Amino acid sequence: MRPEEEQSQCGVPVNLDASPGCEFCRQSGGEVLWRDEKCRVVLVADPDYHGFCRVIWNAHVKEMTDLARDEQQHCMRVVLSVEQVLRRVLKPHKINLASFGNMTPHLHWHVIPRFEYDAHFPQTIWGDRQRSAPPAAPAETGLQLRELLATMLARNYP
Amino acid sequence: MRPEEEQSQCGVPVNLDASPGCEFCRQSGGEVLWRDEKCRVVLVADPDYHGFCRVIWNAHVKEMTDLARDEQQHCMRVVLSVEQVLRRVLKPHKINLASFGNMTPHLHWHVIPRFEYDAHFPQTIWGDRQRSAPPAAPAETGLQLRELLATMLARNYP
Repeated sequence: MRPEEEQSQCGVPVNLDASPGCEFCRQSGGEVLWRDEKCRVVLVADPDYHGFCRVIWNAHVKEMTDLARDEQQHCMRVVLSVEQVLRRVLKPHKINLASFGNMTPHLHWHVIPRFEYDAHFPQTIWGDRQRSAPPAAPAETGLQLRELLATMLARNYP
Repeated sequence: MRPEEEQSQCGVPVNLDASPGCEFCRQSGGEVLWRDEKCRVVLVADPDYHGFCRVIWNAHVKEMTDLARDEQQHCMRVVLSVEQVLRRVLKPHKINLASFGNMTPHLHWHVIPRFEYDAHFPQTIWGDRQRSAPPAAPAETGLQLRELLATMLARNYP
């Protein structure tokens, strides 16, 4: 799929000054809940982890310390807004935050609501599976997350 | 061990308004490289991951969004200073950042320099082991990290 096609399908402007073959330069990475010119928040389609979001920097940047100071702050404000919204909507036992990029070295943050009954708790979701995944969550949760995220980011970080 | 004894042994003032049984309320969590009144940077004694640091919030707080906005910024400045120092001293292939707290719900960040030849790369260090650990690093690296971290934090965030 060419970037132009991806752009027209999901409405996310693709970074054309991108790294060839980079998944997050070519694709949105999930259902886009919110975006601005710097980054986007996507809902990850993971059947084990309902509400799992990623904050993906739009430009192909490897590490947080490759960003300017104000960009670092902007990125973390968005990450923590997602944390706040997930806590409010889903009331998880714990939030997990992580930026790895070992396989896809394009700056992105995992923001994962964790529950004591989820597939890996108390391990990380990259650890050994502990049990079956919990039942699927209500279909309207994506909509709730999208609406609250838009409200919160507009209010807190105009 | 009582908190007073821990305090006198490692020089780290222990948060006496702490959660009973919390590892990071009772213990420093590693060799303390830097500290201020809000948080500390410790070097983790992990034979597989030389240079693995943690930034541990001193007070017993569960999530980043339980902190005030200026405290969140302070915490991330310290985390990203550690990232910057690790990149300069060790020149890793990638930096991994993570805040989980599923087992120890006391706010702490893992800051991990990753190398293509390390024990788990490209998996997270919580994933399946890929190979034997690399040879131990030079003993002076801890000293280098401590000195550069103190310089950088004093310069950037006086």
